[in-house]
Amino acid sequence: MEKQKAALEKLAEIFHVKHPLLRQGLAECLGTLVLVMFGCGAVAQTALSGGTHGTFLTVNLAFGFAATLGGHLNPAVTFALCVLGREPWRKFPVFFLFQTLGAFLGAGIVCGMYFDALWAYGPGSPFVDGMGNATAAIFATYPSKHLTLLNGFFDQVIGTAALLVCILAIVDPHNNPVPGGLEAFTVGLVVLAVGLSMGFNSGYAVNPARDLGPRLFTALAGWGSEVFTGNGYWFLVPLTAPFLGAVVGAAVYQLTVGYSTEGEARCKKRRGEDVTTTTTEEA
Amino acid sequence: MEKQKAALEKLAEIFHVKHPLLRQGLAECLGTLVLVMFGCGAVAQTALSGGTHGTFLTVNLAFGFAATLGGHLNPAVTFALCVLGREPWRKFPVFFLFQTLGAFLGAGIVCGMYFDALWAYGPGSPFVDGMGNATAAIFATYPSKHLTLLNGFFDQVIGTAALLVCILAIVDPHNNPVPGGLEAFTVGLVVLAVGLSMGFNSGYAVNPARDLGPRLFTALAGWGSEVFTGNGYWFLVPLTAPFLGAVVGAAVYQLTVGYSTEGEARCKKRRGEDVTTTTTEEA
Amino acid sequence: MEKQKAALEKLAEIFHVKHPLLRQGLAECLGTLVLVMFGCGAVAQTALSGGTHGTFLTVNLAFGFAATLGGHLNPAVTFALCVLGREPWRKFPVFFLFQTLGAFLGAGIVCGMYFDALWAYGPGSPFVDGMGNATAAIFATYPSKHLTLLNGFFDQVIGTAALLVCILAIVDPHNNPVPGGLEAFTVGLVVLAVGLSMGFNSGYAVNPARDLGPRLFTALAGWGSEVFTGNGYWFLVPLTAPFLGAVVGAAVYQLTVGYSTEGEARCKKRRGEDVTTTTTEEA
Amino acid sequence: MEKQKAALEKLAEIFHVKHPLLRQGLAECLGTLVLVMFGCGAVAQTALSGGTHGTFLTVNLAFGFAATLGGHLNPAVTFALCVLGREPWRKFPVFFLFQTLGAFLGAGIVCGMYFDALWAYGPGSPFVDGMGNATAAIFATYPSKHLTLLNGFFDQVIGTAALLVCILAIVDPHNNPVPGGLEAFTVGLVVLAVGLSMGFNSGYAVNPARDLGPRLFTALAGWGSEVFTGNGYWFLVPLTAPFLGAVVGAAVYQLTVGYSTEGEARCKKRRGEDVTTTTTEEA
Repeated sequence: MEKQKAALEKLAEIFHVKHPLLRQGLAECLGTLVLVMFGCGAVAQTALSGGTHGTFLTVNLAFGFAATLGGHLNPAVTFALCVLGREPWRKFPVFFLFQTLGAFLGAGIVCGMYFDALWAYGPGSPFVDGMGNATAAIFATYPSKHLTLLNGFFDQVIGTAALLVCILAIVDPHNNPVPGGLEAFTVGLVVLAVGLSMGFNSGYAVNPARDLGPRLFTALAGWGSEVFTGNGYWFLVPLTAPFLGAVVGAAVYQLTVGYSTEGEARCKKRRGEDVTTTTTEEA
Repeated sequence: MEKQKAALEKLAEIFHVKHPLLRQGLAECLGTLVLVMFGCGAVAQTALSGGTHGTFLTVNLAFGFAATLGGHLNPAVTFALCVLGREPWRKFPVFFLFQTLGAFLGAGIVCGMYFDALWAYGPGSPFVDGMGNATAAIFATYPSKHLTLLNGFFDQVIGTAALLVCILAIVDPHNNPVPGGLEAFTVGLVVLAVGLSMGFNSGYAVNPARDLGPRLFTALAGWGSEVFTGNGYWFLVPLTAPFLGAVVGAAVYQLTVGYSTEGEARCKKRRGEDVTTTTTEEA
Repeated sequence: MEKQKAALEKLAEIFHVKHPLLRQGLAECLGTLVLVMFGCGAVAQTALSGGTHGTFLTVNLAFGFAATLGGHLNPAVTFALCVLGREPWRKFPVFFLFQTLGAFLGAGIVCGMYFDALWAYGPGSPFVDGMGNATAAIFATYPSKHLTLLNGFFDQVIGTAALLVCILAIVDPHNNPVPGGLEAFTVGLVVLAVGLSMGFNSGYAVNPARDLGPRLFTALAGWGSEVFTGNGYWFLVPLTAPFLGAVVGAAVYQLTVGYSTEGEARCKKRRGEDVTTTTTEEA
Repeated sequence: MEKQKAALEKLAEIFHVKHPLLRQGLAECLGTLVLVMFGCGAVAQTALSGGTHGTFLTVNLAFGFAATLGGHLNPAVTFALCVLGREPWRKFPVFFLFQTLGAFLGAGIVCGMYFDALWAYGPGSPFVDGMGNATAAIFATYPSKHLTLLNGFFDQVIGTAALLVCILAIVDPHNNPVPGGLEAFTVGLVVLAVGLSMGFNSGYAVNPARDLGPRLFTALAGWGSEVFTGNGYWFLVPLTAPFLGAVVGAAVYQLTVGYSTEGEARCKKRRGEDVTTTTTEEA
């Protein structure tokens, strides 16, 4: 036991990452890995079982509950928080990189876990014939047949804007906040709601890292470059639209509600009042 | 960065709405927009996908979780709180207006997001033939075939009364209240329960703004005046019955439980006892 | 506004029930009414819609979430708490009466709300032919075809025992309790779990009031005395077995865990230590 | 009443288990009993009803919500906590024994509760022909047809590693922890997420006790030794792989996130700062 203790303390010393940005980046990497592992894992379970072990709802639940563990997990969220001045800009590229890396690794775990099932699923190799028999869609998002690129872009903007409006409402300290430690749980419910209502067009990526990481994985694992070039370079939509959507959502929340509750809190503070009461209880 | 900070501070100054009623109205508008965007979005996803991407349960979950973000979001709730003297009457018309506006805008977002899917769905234009192929029911509520107007009116009264009984029980500070910040989450569960048990007759509007706003949108967007005149002027039921139901629910709760727990709290206060203990633990 | 205020204060004065037992009985009545209204409402929605607006899961969710509003809502729970000495015996008959009354009224509301749907559902009158076309099972529980009375009795004993073990674990102040105000939410999850795993034999009444009240209603509303005499006087099983099950469950929890955590807390108190730490963190 | 009180106090005295390890072992036994009773009960309800009273999702929900009552309930979790030095090693064999005993008893309760349904289900005796008509899979886990032993082993390692990463993140006091008393609820959501995404290969045992106890029960109750020898001694996979997975998961969390947040907290403490702020808010 003494030996174990000493060994653990040494490990703790070695793996104490002292650079704050790297430390947070690693946390984002692990969080996004878990998000994709559970989320894309649920897609795989549903697709490969032919619907006996999952439905679109279970995919929504998996993505939602995976998000309850906390963190940004989404470069569009990080981007919006930088635009709002709540996070320093140097975090953006670092988080984007680590989030994409985590999503890539999460996709790899799903692929390894369902390796036998992927081979048993379709005719031929899942990697060569994957685009045809839809196994590629386990990992990255693809548009429904009815969707034009323009509507697809709008779809991703709206989805990410909705996500940001809700996240900013949840973490707003002046607007009857949920108890500390439960913000992430509530954000998970929002991800669930987005999936329940905005998932039919193209699978609600609303997250450039969640889409790019697994897409890169499929390109390298054997599905080939078609995952990027297919559907008229569709991959550009979930890669770019969420950033615009996040800014739109942040603007909508701040201009209609956020700046007013903040302003009220500031005024009250100046007058020396208690700031914790919510604005809905006055007037 | 300095420039960004200065610009943000200027924005914050400009968009600090100082009129309390307008500020709260804007919050109600945004909240109801999100409610309808997620709720009617889930109806659209279920209907337009032919059931592959949703079921009646996912619609219930979407409306329920959308309500967990807080606010009245429902003029019938505002009305009941005014009747009970907990909100000033001047809030009622303002909230009604902003809630209906938010629901209208939410319906517009759903329509834009699923524009391609609406066209791909039915034969002909979704707007001209919408009443026939049921796309109008994505936005506003319509009665089931079995329902008479009288039963429909009773349905909306009961649904809204149930909602109010539960809301008043949840926010009752003298009746073992849920932790601050989680009231809205519990209210969301109530909306879910209403949808699970009272949704078969006419889709549980139980909210005049949630029904009127999207109905107005469909009337203007091309579905035409039939959305108002159809089914024997059905639209009047979800527009009026919820107000009666809200008062009935408020009366039932207050007369059986509310006034007693309040009275006990008052008596204890006079006797100088601790008021926070719940009434179920005595006697 | 002055007039409204005066009228409300007068109402509050009149309806302040000062007798503690009556006050709590009324709360139990309203709570059980809501439980049956949502729970049996979900059964009605599922059955009458032929499965398009509900499944067995949605019924489980409705009963579960209805239970999150708090209170005993179940005479078997009240009985076990009296046996454990946590509630005075005089509460038992009063709560049983009010809970059954609430369940009766809840069944009546469901019947009124789905009056048109009941008539549209089957061939002939729902009341005369209800046993045949199964509308009686919307309100009270009936055994599956495979079930013998003996297995049915065991089923209800086990179901109620499981409920009590979990309730006592949740409200145990010495066993890492959930935050105050969230006990009822967790109890609701237990009701959900019971429904998910113990609902196939006879619909998991595990509550004499929830079964007797609606059964009385159906007998009076036109389904007739067969609801009592049918299936070999089946109604006696959900009326009696839950009381035995509740005592079994209370005994199992107290003898294996409860008396030990209580004993530890007492010992610590004597030694003047902090009692709030959980037992799992020691040793 | 006096007599009742005296009798209860005597009982409390007798059943106050004073040995801490035995006391905790009994709690683990009861907790795992409840886990298997609800979890395998939901499998039984789904299988025996032919899908009318359950789906794979309801099984996931039952296992998930059963886990919200708290405790380790899993020898792989106990093992990992011992490896990390957070629990003393003497707990491991005791907990393993009691957890397996609880799972055995839970399986027995499910078998008794659905005794009639088991006989009504298949042709012939459920015990003799159980392997053929799949009733054995109600209790222990068996691999899907597509699964090789190697992929099955990896599946259990990954599943348990994912569980441990999430559990350690949830209970990490330095990483924006959920409110005290809600850890178990969040762990339940993780068990749900594992089931939604990692259940297709072999039913996500990720818990040696949950699998071994019910398997022993089926061997003794009549299904015979085939439950151990079948599928190439499959039972060894859920018995051994979770221990490896738990250590892998613990290592991944501690080396990427855990030791860093702990190290930061230690450094801050030395500098005399407040340790409760989360690491994501700095930098």
